[in-house]
Amino acid sequence: MRQPLGEEKVFKDPVHNYIHVQDELIWALINTPEFQRLRRIRQLGTTFLTFHGAEHSRFSHSLGVYEITRRIISQFERSGYSDWPKEERMVALCAALLHDLGHGPFSHSIEEAFEMDHEDWTCKILLGDTEVNRLLKQISENFPDKVAAVIRKDYDKPVVVNLVSSPLDADRMDYLLRDAYFTGVNYGTIDIDRILRMLRPFHGRVVVKESGMHAVEDYLMARYQMYWQVYFHPVTRSSEILLRQIFRRAKELWASGYSFKMMLDPLPGLFTRELTVAEYLQLDEALIQTVFLKWQNEEDAVLKDLCGRFMNRNLYKYVEIEQSDSESVEEIRQAFEAAGLNPIYDLEIDSPADLPYDIFKPEDGLTTNQILLLDRQEQLKEISEVSDIVRSISGIHRGRYQLYYPQDKLQNVKDKLPAEIRAFFNI
Amino acid sequence: MRQPLGEEKVFKDPVHNYIHVQDELIWALINTPEFQRLRRIRQLGTTFLTFHGAEHSRFSHSLGVYEITRRIISQFERSGYSDWPKEERMVALCAALLHDLGHGPFSHSIEEAFEMDHEDWTCKILLGDTEVNRLLKQISENFPDKVAAVIRKDYDKPVVVNLVSSPLDADRMDYLLRDAYFTGVNYGTIDIDRILRMLRPFHGRVVVKESGMHAVEDYLMARYQMYWQVYFHPVTRSSEILLRQIFRRAKELWASGYSFKMMLDPLPGLFTRELTVAEYLQLDEALIQTVFLKWQNEEDAVLKDLCGRFMNRNLYKYVEIEQSDSESVEEIRQAFEAAGLNPIYDLEIDSPADLPYDIFKPEDGLTTNQILLLDRQEQLKEISEVSDIVRSISGIHRGRYQLYYPQDKLQNVKDKLPAEIRAFFNI
Amino acid sequence: MRQPLGEEKVFKDPVHNYIHVQDELIWALINTPEFQRLRRIRQLGTTFLTFHGAEHSRFSHSLGVYEITRRIISQFERSGYSDWPKEERMVALCAALLHDLGHGPFSHSIEEAFEMDHEDWTCKILLGDTEVNRLLKQISENFPDKVAAVIRKDYDKPVVVNLVSSPLDADRMDYLLRDAYFTGVNYGTIDIDRILRMLRPFHGRVVVKESGMHAVEDYLMARYQMYWQVYFHPVTRSSEILLRQIFRRAKELWASGYSFKMMLDPLPGLFTRELTVAEYLQLDEALIQTVFLKWQNEEDAVLKDLCGRFMNRNLYKYVEIEQSDSESVEEIRQAFEAAGLNPIYDLEIDSPADLPYDIFKPEDGLTTNQILLLDRQEQLKEISEVSDIVRSISGIHRGRYQLYYPQDKLQNVKDKLPAEIRAFFNI
Amino acid sequence: MRQPLGEEKVFKDPVHNYIHVQDELIWALINTPEFQRLRRIRQLGTTFLTFHGAEHSRFSHSLGVYEITRRIISQFERSGYSDWPKEERMVALCAALLHDLGHGPFSHSIEEAFEMDHEDWTCKILLGDTEVNRLLKQISENFPDKVAAVIRKDYDKPVVVNLVSSPLDADRMDYLLRDAYFTGVNYGTIDIDRILRMLRPFHGRVVVKESGMHAVEDYLMARYQMYWQVYFHPVTRSSEILLRQIFRRAKELWASGYSFKMMLDPLPGLFTRELTVAEYLQLDEALIQTVFLKWQNEEDAVLKDLCGRFMNRNLYKYVEIEQSDSESVEEIRQAFEAAGLNPIYDLEIDSPADLPYDIFKPEDGLTTNQILLLDRQEQLKEISEVSDIVRSISGIHRGRYQLYYPQDKLQNVKDKLPAEIRAFFNI
Repeated sequence: MRQPLGEEKVFKDPVHNYIHVQDELIWALINTPEFQRLRRIRQLGTTFLTFHGAEHSRFSHSLGVYEITRRIISQFERSGYSDWPKEERMVALCAALLHDLGHGPFSHSIEEAFEMDHEDWTCKILLGDTEVNRLLKQISENFPDKVAAVIRKDYDKPVVVNLVSSPLDADRMDYLLRDAYFTGVNYGTIDIDRILRMLRPFHGRVVVKESGMHAVEDYLMARYQMYWQVYFHPVTRSSEILLRQIFRRAKELWASGYSFKMMLDPLPGLFTRELTVAEYLQLDEALIQTVFLKWQNEEDAVLKDLCGRFMNRNLYKYVEIEQSDSESVEEIRQAFEAAGLNPIYDLEIDSPADLPYDIFKPEDGLTTNQILLLDRQEQLKEISEVSDIVRSISGIHRGRYQLYYPQDKLQNVKDKLPAEIRAFFNI
Repeated sequence: MRQPLGEEKVFKDPVHNYIHVQDELIWALINTPEFQRLRRIRQLGTTFLTFHGAEHSRFSHSLGVYEITRRIISQFERSGYSDWPKEERMVALCAALLHDLGHGPFSHSIEEAFEMDHEDWTCKILLGDTEVNRLLKQISENFPDKVAAVIRKDYDKPVVVNLVSSPLDADRMDYLLRDAYFTGVNYGTIDIDRILRMLRPFHGRVVVKESGMHAVEDYLMARYQMYWQVYFHPVTRSSEILLRQIFRRAKELWASGYSFKMMLDPLPGLFTRELTVAEYLQLDEALIQTVFLKWQNEEDAVLKDLCGRFMNRNLYKYVEIEQSDSESVEEIRQAFEAAGLNPIYDLEIDSPADLPYDIFKPEDGLTTNQILLLDRQEQLKEISEVSDIVRSISGIHRGRYQLYYPQDKLQNVKDKLPAEIRAFFNI
Repeated sequence: MRQPLGEEKVFKDPVHNYIHVQDELIWALINTPEFQRLRRIRQLGTTFLTFHGAEHSRFSHSLGVYEITRRIISQFERSGYSDWPKEERMVALCAALLHDLGHGPFSHSIEEAFEMDHEDWTCKILLGDTEVNRLLKQISENFPDKVAAVIRKDYDKPVVVNLVSSPLDADRMDYLLRDAYFTGVNYGTIDIDRILRMLRPFHGRVVVKESGMHAVEDYLMARYQMYWQVYFHPVTRSSEILLRQIFRRAKELWASGYSFKMMLDPLPGLFTRELTVAEYLQLDEALIQTVFLKWQNEEDAVLKDLCGRFMNRNLYKYVEIEQSDSESVEEIRQAFEAAGLNPIYDLEIDSPADLPYDIFKPEDGLTTNQILLLDRQEQLKEISEVSDIVRSISGIHRGRYQLYYPQDKLQNVKDKLPAEIRAFFNI
Repeated sequence: MRQPLGEEKVFKDPVHNYIHVQDELIWALINTPEFQRLRRIRQLGTTFLTFHGAEHSRFSHSLGVYEITRRIISQFERSGYSDWPKEERMVALCAALLHDLGHGPFSHSIEEAFEMDHEDWTCKILLGDTEVNRLLKQISENFPDKVAAVIRKDYDKPVVVNLVSSPLDADRMDYLLRDAYFTGVNYGTIDIDRILRMLRPFHGRVVVKESGMHAVEDYLMARYQMYWQVYFHPVTRSSEILLRQIFRRAKELWASGYSFKMMLDPLPGLFTRELTVAEYLQLDEALIQTVFLKWQNEEDAVLKDLCGRFMNRNLYKYVEIEQSDSESVEEIRQAFEAAGLNPIYDLEIDSPADLPYDIFKPEDGLTTNQILLLDRQEQLKEISEVSDIVRSISGIHRGRYQLYYPQDKLQNVKDKLPAEIRAFFNI
């Protein structure tokens, strides 16, 4: 497992052209059931309901992160940077490849609904009774721990952690390019070759040479655009809300002893939060979609309705509200109830605080959130000190509060709703 | 339903940039459960196991076929061609959009295993008790029949049929571009704008202006390359073979009264070929993958093994054989059986005759297989008469016979295999 | 000339794929000597010395501006906007096609050196004794005046002016895309299809539908990046400075009665600012380069040196200085003179005020500099009121003062330079 | 000059993204006047009159050939192929970079008109009193001879020659990609990464691993398409014919003692074929265009007319003729003369034999024209033995004979032409 492959293997990839596999261990890891499972988990959850091209999986993203990491390390080695610890190559490559191993189906919603954390699960899979664990151990007994430490960000070589998680890491670079490619949105196009050439290890961090500042500006602008155009798209938020409601309803029903016509393992364990690693690995989006398909025939009207909406993309509509409007939301809720609507499932607020992604905010003081430029005198500067454009976009907090609701149901009871509510919803 | 939409709606598409929806009916059809189901059926079946980017669905392909058809008709109308029957616009658009509605999960394999035909199912869905049928009927009582007739290629306006199915139809143009985009293979890039500008209706057919000959040559060469690089890729064939074997085994077991630990409707109806339209519409790739996931725990060793292989991409290897080698195949089969391997499931021949796609072969005499060029004197010529390059590629019959087998199992029993068999399989 | 062409003609264009010519007049204008001359004038002047791909001409840019304008008008007509005066189509198309007709060779430098203005020359060519004028007159006697009025921005239909010159006009959209394509810099990629769909004529202006805000943000960010990465690139500035110096020196020599070994018409008229239209049309970059090639053999050492540098890309180096440093510049100049360097030609300051391009600055109060968004209630808002990102980039005034000098010459006299000057220039 | 550069330098390139310069010598060679001159010579001669984007220079192509060669060698070194002589790296890189140094303006036409050969001139420049020669000598006294030998294809390490000139060399790969990019024609897109990975040195040749066969097929098909769509485009041929006629006429006039109003050195030396290297290096397309610009005012009506046509793109039209039609051509010529047209300059035949480019024809027996595949048993096969598609396209000899003539002049004298001639020219 320590050896290089006799002959390099490649995967054809639409984003990086080719993914180059040069080590026996990497090849073996890709072929484990745990890694192959990522083929059945989409990179962007329900985004395919907004951008139909976004059907790409975490499998392809993980290969992409691995490839970018491989190229960075190869550039570090070619440049002969003494701040790069050469013996860490394999730890870094494995962490890059495996960092998303613990993602569940429709990750953000399921994590929220069941209070899970994919990073924890990644570590459990790395350290548990799995094929991946067995392969990693062939390097050394504590090799799985090392990889897990990198993912938990507490590995004792911070430059390795930095490579895999930082505001300019291989993960973000791959997903920007990949999500732009598959959605068809061209905002995410970045000059990755130039960025990679500008990176160098320096005193335990990965920093950017000053002459790469414009390329980093462009990367942060691309990221900013992708967030607002794709990741926070209200239609995607709407489908995430449906998902959360389905999970919430199913959990309630299970807790209340409701007898499901259709139930598949390991869902009960998910509801009660008692999943083993082996059970967790059974969870994928095919299974979730199949269960939802069948739940369209459940007795429970709420679950049945929600699942029908999700499967047939009959999503909730939305209106924007002021942040301070919590009173009026309460009023709407009461009016809904009075009109016979479900005050919990037929009305949902989405606040920016629920947004699962982080925008670049260097000011929060965490050094790991900073992008550092290295000038010719080997002095470091945080990029927003130097770049007007970065300073201006990192200061923007766009708070969009939105109210989501089933337009068709509202339409049905509109005679029972007060005039101002009807005006508000424009019905 | 007859009206145009108040404001054009668009879908962002990585291949065509935008899909433009201008008619209320088209919008409503896209939102039916029957059409949304196509999101859960991949355009290229198991090809994602070879090219990991190929995770795109028939949903996006169907939108693409619709869009190309819309552009062709719009060009016909702008050019004022009298051979184009304007009143057929909506029939053509609906046929383009809905032509793949009857595809099942992993279509080619399932059709072969259960002797079904997706075109039949498309017509059944168009004409049966479905949302799609109800919408089409709002145009006129016989409108569903018209659309079905176009799909069955017996509509009485042949130019409409030609638009939707011919060697240079919207279907093929979209899939070449789309499959090239998502696999990342750049062989399928064609100059679609130029081809579309060169098409015109002429005496009941869609023909190409002579000055577009090079663009058509390029299209046919792209298609030729895609067939050999992508569609007939031996790794894809290998995964199709696994699929076929799983279906075959499950059908056998069901017929024999085997008690499955896990069974989901409507699979039994599939095994016995007694599916209603409503049941058929329950079939999607999520369901199939979920069943296979669970069948990894079945008692039956064959089914269990095959499903494990499929889910974890542990595919059969292959060797090329001579076409005439049926005797030696028989010999191998006997040697396998003697060594304790399963002579049916552990050895499979794949012959070009099983190839599900048609290469351009004008010589088979079917006029519908011809691409006609229209010269300045309004004379028609079949393209392979004029183009050396088309003539040469259409004559190529590349017969690749391949033997597929589980390398790991062979390895396990290699001591029990005769020397020449071991040499043949290089073990 | 009023008729459409029998059959549409197309130009293959790498940026817009095809340029569609539908009118006899447009076709005839493209074939005039005045328009063909634009093939011999580069779109980006000396930028090819920085980005070697930037060898594209104003000819291809002019076709691109025409094409974008054609698409916008066609969308206006399809959408049936009553605020678009249909009878102005041809005026707008001609103004778009011909707006750069008056550009001279290495336009920005030559205009600065000889106090000319390409817009004036465009109007002179439109109205003078030219092929273009004769063709335009075939539409009507005052048609050339109409086209000139649009270019001078005083045409009485402001919406037409707006289409051709505004912060979101066809000119800027084409050059962003085209310059990005030919330099190979991918910052200029914009979603032009989306922007075009979002434009509409409204009360005498071309405005943007509010839902297009993100696309406009992206366009302005792309423009911002192109300015700093390409248009203001210090190496390009350096070559522009050489050009200016050559022109300045030649003018001086001519005024002083110096006898040139090589002189070509119409350069003397350029020096004395007495060019006729016919003479002006003789000026192109081939002629300028040929003269410079020959001037490498002139007696005058300054001219000879400057021309040699320009032809062989032996450019001046640069250091950044503080804006307030005018005293120290004077000091440097004296030190240069004392060391035997030429205090005028061997030292040049480049200040942002010399920058030939405008960055988007809505705050300067000119309504023509504003991009207006139209919301669903048909209210207009200036974009920087609504968009944080636009507000932040439009506030940035990056003042870069740079000192340009011939490094090799400095090196030669370094022993004669004071220590602090040597330190400053790092020699 | 032997050392690597302290820090790698890069050129931004639209085709290869970045050109990487790692050696001091390469950097210095790029900055010589001889190499910078290539900026003033277009890669595709007059093709910009057909495809307006094709304004790219031999400078950018030469950098591209260098870059591909650098990548191939780097892959050879990484793979540790013993058949690659490592010490030849710099010879190969220099030959790649400099192989086009001897090209003149509008190379193909000027070579034909004045019986020159650009390869000879390249060698003269390498070996003569030039900056390039001085730099090369800094490596070793006979280094310029080595580079020249590679270019003359008689270097004693055939694998180096093969790298720079063979049917799959860096030159062809760059021009296919580059010409496709700048014309905007997408036929030339090839998977260069894959091809480069598949090359290996083997017994003194560069061969292709068998698994790269499809990529080579695709490359040859792209090349085939580019030849017919771009390189042999009749409009380009028409402008080449004008050029040839101008050169021919000027030579005649010079020989006859005609007194030119305008003449620039080194044209007389070109006419009399007595150019020194220094004079030859003065020739570029700017100079030629400037002379033609001025010759529009010459006394000689033929020269004046031809130059006006060339500058203003008023090209000859063409009709296709049968190869065997030499009698009828003679008849036409006589009819032209009788009608007062110039029988020599107003009628020109273009035959495929004049085509300057070679199509892939392995059958001519020259081993240097072959592409060899290396199978797993290390056996070599010529590609057309194995690939049907290559066999079919390499057999095609498309003979297009065309007659070029000035349509406007014909129109003027049409009453004096016999009816059948008028019918033939459709006037």
